[in-house]
Amino acid sequence: MQVARTIQEAREQVKQARSSGRSVGFVPTMGDLHRGHLSLVGRCRELADYVVISIYVNPLQFGPGEDFDSYPRDEDRDLALAERAGVDLAFLPSDRELYPGDTSVVVTPKRLADRLCGLSRPGHFEGVLTVVAKLFGIITPDVSIIGQKDFQQAVLIKRMVADLNLPVDIEVAPTVREEDGLAMSSRNAHLSESDRGYARRISRGLAEAVAAYRGGERDAGLLERRVTGALGTGEELRVEYVEVVSAKDLEPVARADADTVIAVAAHVGGTRLIDNIILDRPDPDLEKALHNWRA
Amino acid sequence: MQVARTIQEAREQVKQARSSGRSVGFVPTMGDLHRGHLSLVGRCRELADYVVISIYVNPLQFGPGEDFDSYPRDEDRDLALAERAGVDLAFLPSDRELYPGDTSVVVTPKRLADRLCGLSRPGHFEGVLTVVAKLFGIITPDVSIIGQKDFQQAVLIKRMVADLNLPVDIEVAPTVREEDGLAMSSRNAHLSESDRGYARRISRGLAEAVAAYRGGERDAGLLERRVTGALGTGEELRVEYVEVVSAKDLEPVARADADTVIAVAAHVGGTRLIDNIILDRPDPDLEKALHNWRA
Repeated sequence: MQVARTIQEAREQVKQARSSGRSVGFVPTMGDLHRGHLSLVGRCRELADYVVISIYVNPLQFGPGEDFDSYPRDEDRDLALAERAGVDLAFLPSDRELYPGDTSVVVTPKRLADRLCGLSRPGHFEGVLTVVAKLFGIITPDVSIIGQKDFQQAVLIKRMVADLNLPVDIEVAPTVREEDGLAMSSRNAHLSESDRGYARRISRGLAEAVAAYRGGERDAGLLERRVTGALGTGEELRVEYVEVVSAKDLEPVARADADTVIAVAAHVGGTRLIDNIILDRPDPDLEKALHNWRA
Repeated sequence: MQVARTIQEAREQVKQARSSGRSVGFVPTMGDLHRGHLSLVGRCRELADYVVISIYVNPLQFGPGEDFDSYPRDEDRDLALAERAGVDLAFLPSDRELYPGDTSVVVTPKRLADRLCGLSRPGHFEGVLTVVAKLFGIITPDVSIIGQKDFQQAVLIKRMVADLNLPVDIEVAPTVREEDGLAMSSRNAHLSESDRGYARRISRGLAEAVAAYRGGERDAGLLERRVTGALGTGEELRVEYVEVVSAKDLEPVARADADTVIAVAAHVGGTRLIDNIILDRPDPDLEKALHNWRA
């Protein structure tokens, strides 16, 4: 595995791979790699000959008071995991390399950012889209794999690619979960054991809503209540939102269909967790967790 | 010369050119081609093997009450001129092709747009950067040639490429002028004969400022007064701005140097005209015009 720390090094490595006729796949990450990231790498290897991963905690997408400073970073571990997963090139730029001066031009979501996570994180998605556009400009991938867990982010990246005609295909890969159903996240490390028990309610609530949907329930309000019922009203888990929305434009729907997403954000201890499910898309790890609960 | 009207056609043509090892140059235009555009094409042919031009009057960069509807359009003439100039591919997308739905994600100038032309044309540069980013995404040029006449636009496109790490080189080519010094512009067609006489004051004022600079004048206020003096105070030419700014960040300077630009916007009749000069960069057509005036 090659490691590039400058834009020029990364471009040269990619150029070399391309010159030998290989297609380029790309997985952007903020590091602290877990099985979720590695599943994106695995899918990327199926779709492209040369797999690039970026590891960069992007300051532009963190607001004041958010967890930029405490965001977990472990470069040696990340590089070992990436290499073992079959990554060809790891790109680890410094802040100075990616943002050498004041940023004058950014990528802005006009719509789609004024809801869900965007409400509590103003500027977050501008930061996400700007850094992803930059990384796409540096790596020039043919295909990029994005995790479904950050659903609004995935929708916005797809919209950016469509609206700006960026020459890259985006694939959204299913959420990878712990055995108990909790969606994999670098932030799970902040959870105490009791927090972990509360956090589990999120995926359990989503699973109950899916079960109701499969049982014929289409009323969005009732599906939402399945989730909120599972989350409870205590201080141990504070709900930020539970929304039943269209997977395309994130607009709330009154009646659920195959293209409906249920998205949740909640705070457990000091940790903000998000999760979601697309009603008609299989979520193998959630099925497994359901099976475990029932056993 | 090939003509592409869809994104897919354009991409296929470019892909074919690339597969035969040719580098790709690109000149974005709004059509109504004049010698200014053709000089950009000429320079592009020097720098790239395969030359693409786009002809598209971009609604996103026109404000309400601006001249989107009256902007001159003559496709047959444009295509004939482009072919004669040695263009390999002309891309003429429809509005529907470039903006099929509502645009959710745009490219926004945070700074650099809140001055000069940006003051009277809110949203203009967001529209410019968004369409240029889209065209770069479709054509994926190695190099793109931008005219100096729209100086703030050129600075912003260069900043976009730098800030978003777009994989393209930008070259800014000198302004082409009429014999009397008037900067070439599609909007000159709107000028009556007497308007034309007034409009000439703009380039004459810039030439006088350059002469003063060459004579040793460095005081930005005095250089500015050379221009405003030439423009006059009558209703026949209404000055929107005369600014002495840094070519890098468009910030006003107190003392002029090689990197200083004098930029002008003025209204003659119903027509808004802009022009500029970089103090230490040769402007061959302005020299010629000066020579004509003196003769």
